[in-house]
Amino acid sequence: MTLPVPVLDRSVVPAADGDGVTVLDRRVFPAQVSWVTCKTPEDVAAAIRDMVTQSSGPAYAAAAGMALAARQAAGLRLDDARARLRAAGEALATARPTNAHPREVVDSVLAAASGAATTAELVAAAVAAAQRADETYRTRSHALGRHTARLLPDGARVLTHCWMDGYLIELVRAADELGRRYRWTATETRPYLQGARLTAHTLAEMGQDVTLITDSMGAAALASGRVDALVTAADRVAMDGSVANKVGTLGLAAAAARFGVPFYALVQAPDPTTPTGADIVVEERDPAEVLETLGRRTASPLVTEAWYPAFDVTPPDLVTRVVTDRGAFEPGRLADYVTTGEA
Amino acid sequence: MTLPVPVLDRSVVPAADGDGVTVLDRRVFPAQVSWVTCKTPEDVAAAIRDMVTQSSGPAYAAAAGMALAARQAAGLRLDDARARLRAAGEALATARPTNAHPREVVDSVLAAASGAATTAELVAAAVAAAQRADETYRTRSHALGRHTARLLPDGARVLTHCWMDGYLIELVRAADELGRRYRWTATETRPYLQGARLTAHTLAEMGQDVTLITDSMGAAALASGRVDALVTAADRVAMDGSVANKVGTLGLAAAAARFGVPFYALVQAPDPTTPTGADIVVEERDPAEVLETLGRRTASPLVTEAWYPAFDVTPPDLVTRVVTDRGAFEPGRLADYVTTGEA
Repeated sequence: MTLPVPVLDRSVVPAADGDGVTVLDRRVFPAQVSWVTCKTPEDVAAAIRDMVTQSSGPAYAAAAGMALAARQAAGLRLDDARARLRAAGEALATARPTNAHPREVVDSVLAAASGAATTAELVAAAVAAAQRADETYRTRSHALGRHTARLLPDGARVLTHCWMDGYLIELVRAADELGRRYRWTATETRPYLQGARLTAHTLAEMGQDVTLITDSMGAAALASGRVDALVTAADRVAMDGSVANKVGTLGLAAAAARFGVPFYALVQAPDPTTPTGADIVVEERDPAEVLETLGRRTASPLVTEAWYPAFDVTPPDLVTRVVTDRGAFEPGRLADYVTTGEA
Repeated sequence: MTLPVPVLDRSVVPAADGDGVTVLDRRVFPAQVSWVTCKTPEDVAAAIRDMVTQSSGPAYAAAAGMALAARQAAGLRLDDARARLRAAGEALATARPTNAHPREVVDSVLAAASGAATTAELVAAAVAAAQRADETYRTRSHALGRHTARLLPDGARVLTHCWMDGYLIELVRAADELGRRYRWTATETRPYLQGARLTAHTLAEMGQDVTLITDSMGAAALASGRVDALVTAADRVAMDGSVANKVGTLGLAAAAARFGVPFYALVQAPDPTTPTGADIVVEERDPAEVLETLGRRTASPLVTEAWYPAFDVTPPDLVTRVVTDRGAFEPGRLADYVTTGEA
């Protein structure tokens, strides 16, 4: 369609010299447009761990990191090349504990390379699989965007939290294909302000109507009739319908339930390795981030203690639908995902 | 007791030359300790409107402003002095629409001055009444602090939002008198960061244990068993038990209800002129504040729209108790306030 392509849709790209990966630094974007150069897969893993990139970014970065690992292994003996690919995959898959996409990308690449009889075959298979993993991530994001757009009529007023990344971009594209256009309210999403910097920016780039609020204003928006649906991504959805996502999602979901607004949580697929919400490890990050805003101290100098859970887990009864690449499911019916055909 | 006196306990004081009022600028405190000089009651009203002072501050400022108006009217004929006092009162009482305390202070001063037969009598009566209004505000805050402390056992872990000002300071003092000490979690309270700057600072000044979180983390704290009670001030409580307070209170209350944590809303008295929550006018402030943090642009430069409701209204079913200077009431039993004896 005619929608502009936002910068964040292509934020992990090959390095100019071909031997590396450059990653848009989302920690400072859009105030600064700065690209981090990663010369090794471990550099890419560090970029994921340090939140140079997040949300969909780690999936793209894991694919690019595995392709890089394969290319750099071209001169090694097969066993060494295979070991190198596995080590790179381990670093990329474990860079952050809650986001499951890097693990999926890594596993798909390792599986594709497992039958290689020579180093050259291994490199070719891994590079091709990494490329496919990137494309598959985008295709599946578009599919879940289409299923979400079917739930949201033209003109719907959507509240979103944090940064849905590829899911957001593909939802806007899918809605556009259906002739639907939404009015967005975005929370700013402290402490990193992904909503104020990334979501609102990207929606504006795509020509969408977007209103910014602080995180504290979500419940007021939900209670006041200004919002028709709460829509967020999910970093992980357990098979019982529990939704792990950026801290703050839980509070918005509780308010949405109280005020009768549906909550749609978007994920490509529920995680079959996570039976319940209690099985989700919630990552805690450096509490110093809470004391500052974009690098500047904003709390009183007397304050020394802070708490920074990166995610929260929304229980299934606060979730209206989990929208996947295979359709929208009631949270209690996620087992049906595996028996549902591809979109 | 031996608790240190925090700076914010005495943040509205006479000007050095006696002909004016100086108000601590809470917008930049504690990064800067800056006092705004008000030469007229209208200057004081502007300081309230511009949020130089807020929370309990407008009550203190209204008292100081009325005393200033009276002193400055000493050279006028009685009718003119009375008119001057009324005009000052109108400016002070209407500086912000939701906070009811300035109106109460102004009315008490005007009532005390109403019987004056000479300008000198009017000035003396008004100055004395303004002094009493300030003292009464502090005495009543201590009473509600005592009633709140009785609900919170020693060691209780308390989540608070925004800045309870005199209520917070008196609650800590009342708890100390009962031999009780709490562990505090404070939300930072965007956009003005009153929690990060004022609440956490004042609790630290008073030697209390305080942990800072962003506004988005309140529900996670409530769900995780880290919090025994949610305690906030209320700018206004309707007779049906609806609680108007800093935006964000509603979301915390919804999460507290969902996770079985009691919510205590503190107010000196419910407002008999406000029958229901629907009668509360929610002030909307300059949306530009949402786009920046302490004066620096933090949202994407592409974002032009924001929404800034200064308050939200929590419905009575999400409130466990409204704690007043006459005790703690179920939200549906606030009519009992008028028939309850003074504390």
